[in-house]
Amino acid sequence: MPELRKDPITDRWVIIATDRARRPTDFEREPVEFSTGRICPFCTGLETKTPPEVLAIREGSGSNQPGWSLRVVPNKFPVLGIEGEVNRQGEGMFDKMDGLGAHEVIIETNVHTDNLANMPEKQVERVLWAFRERVLDLKKDKRLRYILLFKNYGTAAGATLDHPHSQLIALPVVPKRVQEELDGATKYFGFKERCVFCDLIRQEMKDQTRVVSETDRFVVIEPWASRFPFETWIMPRRHQSHFESIDQTDLQGLAFVLRSTLRKLDRVLERPAYNFVIHTAPVQEPGNDYFHWHIELMPKLTKLAGFEWGTGFYTNPTPPEESAKFLRDAGLS
Amino acid sequence: MPELRKDPITDRWVIIATDRARRPTDFEREPVEFSTGRICPFCTGLETKTPPEVLAIREGSGSNQPGWSLRVVPNKFPVLGIEGEVNRQGEGMFDKMDGLGAHEVIIETNVHTDNLANMPEKQVERVLWAFRERVLDLKKDKRLRYILLFKNYGTAAGATLDHPHSQLIALPVVPKRVQEELDGATKYFGFKERCVFCDLIRQEMKDQTRVVSETDRFVVIEPWASRFPFETWIMPRRHQSHFESIDQTDLQGLAFVLRSTLRKLDRVLERPAYNFVIHTAPVQEPGNDYFHWHIELMPKLTKLAGFEWGTGFYTNPTPPEESAKFLRDAGLS
Repeated sequence: MPELRKDPITDRWVIIATDRARRPTDFEREPVEFSTGRICPFCTGLETKTPPEVLAIREGSGSNQPGWSLRVVPNKFPVLGIEGEVNRQGEGMFDKMDGLGAHEVIIETNVHTDNLANMPEKQVERVLWAFRERVLDLKKDKRLRYILLFKNYGTAAGATLDHPHSQLIALPVVPKRVQEELDGATKYFGFKERCVFCDLIRQEMKDQTRVVSETDRFVVIEPWASRFPFETWIMPRRHQSHFESIDQTDLQGLAFVLRSTLRKLDRVLERPAYNFVIHTAPVQEPGNDYFHWHIELMPKLTKLAGFEWGTGFYTNPTPPEESAKFLRDAGLS
Repeated sequence: MPELRKDPITDRWVIIATDRARRPTDFEREPVEFSTGRICPFCTGLETKTPPEVLAIREGSGSNQPGWSLRVVPNKFPVLGIEGEVNRQGEGMFDKMDGLGAHEVIIETNVHTDNLANMPEKQVERVLWAFRERVLDLKKDKRLRYILLFKNYGTAAGATLDHPHSQLIALPVVPKRVQEELDGATKYFGFKERCVFCDLIRQEMKDQTRVVSETDRFVVIEPWASRFPFETWIMPRRHQSHFESIDQTDLQGLAFVLRSTLRKLDRVLERPAYNFVIHTAPVQEPGNDYFHWHIELMPKLTKLAGFEWGTGFYTNPTPPEESAKFLRDAGLS
């Protein structure tokens, strides 16, 4: 008998197939492949192919010149523009505003064929540092209410360029799903006077069946009501509502667990395409006791997307207890 | 400058790219192709390959024998099972229940290579009739709170078999997105004492820019805050909360507009993969004044799924005003 499980934060029900669970080898896997030879606008020497950088790590060389190991640039084809005003308007019963915001690309390395699972841990730390720096800078603009940090890896996950990169979108509104998560966490806090994520971490660490790994500062789990096979959450053990409050030690610790989790997924699922999103509290709000930032990582293994899109009703053929075991048994630290 | 638009029912904001709108030919289209030659469990003569039928249209022949033009059968690999009890339980802070429900397949025709856009209109009407019959039958089971009717067409949209078919999933809970839509409609009704969908239909028909087509009983629109390029809604003009309340005349009218809309999409987008979902009120609730059943149809043209999945934040590269114009100009009634 399959199980219906409820996510304790959002109250979302998910069908988990427990009878005929799909194992890693049951998925039609298309390992992410890299094209070489085509001109890549993110490679060294082609800095003029991107808009001027807003942040870079480089030794000695001048802005927008070769000699960098990480760059952040505005997206050449942004979904939102930074100029102008929010300009809320109505059209009869409909509401709209100008698409004010920022859309940036974090070019993670100058090595075209590298990726977060294989690059040196120090470089992953630089990427996370750049995430934090850009949020700290952009949040000064009070028009921006939410900042999304995310990565699409592999064409199946929506990436259009191979060169290792992540993205940042800063918005004049808090997205609905984020608000829903905040509301769920607020409701739980109102009832229990405890952070739902802190409680979840405590229960998962005691239970262990859905834990992939833990360090002194982070825990990696397959969530109870996973929507997707091998959905993985990376959570700081210490309560913190905003990602950008992370200190240098935790940045290092996060670099280690993010890289090692991606290596496990690569080992078990043969380099799957994936998306990850940093879930964090709205930038203009002060730190709070009820929300707890974390990373949600979703390998792209199934195609059953359209229906789930339309209804928000997910069916997951792999119980999180089994995916956690596969990842624990991957034989990597 | 792109636009942020808010859906008036769910309050979901969507980014609509108005500057560099993508036209039909800009999408990487993979026309849906049909395999032949492989044994198909939905074809005539192989009735024993499926579980016994729960509904069929046949002339004279016996159950589960050849001679049918439409069959409804339980899914051989159901995501939910009809036996047992709901059996709500907790595991510490987590909630679960047994995966009680029904999962059925509507085999739309005995012609393996046909599809809803090309089959005779009368056959489309039979498919819609079967949808209604199955809901009317299953709703007698008071454990079932919501019944989803949907179609995945083409592998890109999650279909695993080529033979024309739709699906039904009956659930012991109301899915979160459905509840959200109901809540949004209730809120609007509380404020205005009018159905938000009725208001929307009135405004769209007056404005015309997002209308694809209209008949005396239905209107086809590209919604204001479309999440996907060529997202299309088919709505009855007369207020009705439950799909299963549809009368025979409206079934006929719906068959015409559904088929003609799919033909337009096929013409403009070269037979795209798509999903459609019937949005309707929960089966155990009586008819109401605030919800309005309709069909949401989503061609699968973009791959930017994973990120949107994770955040509920959509960016749509084609304004609905433009997609409506392409569909109006398709030169089909």
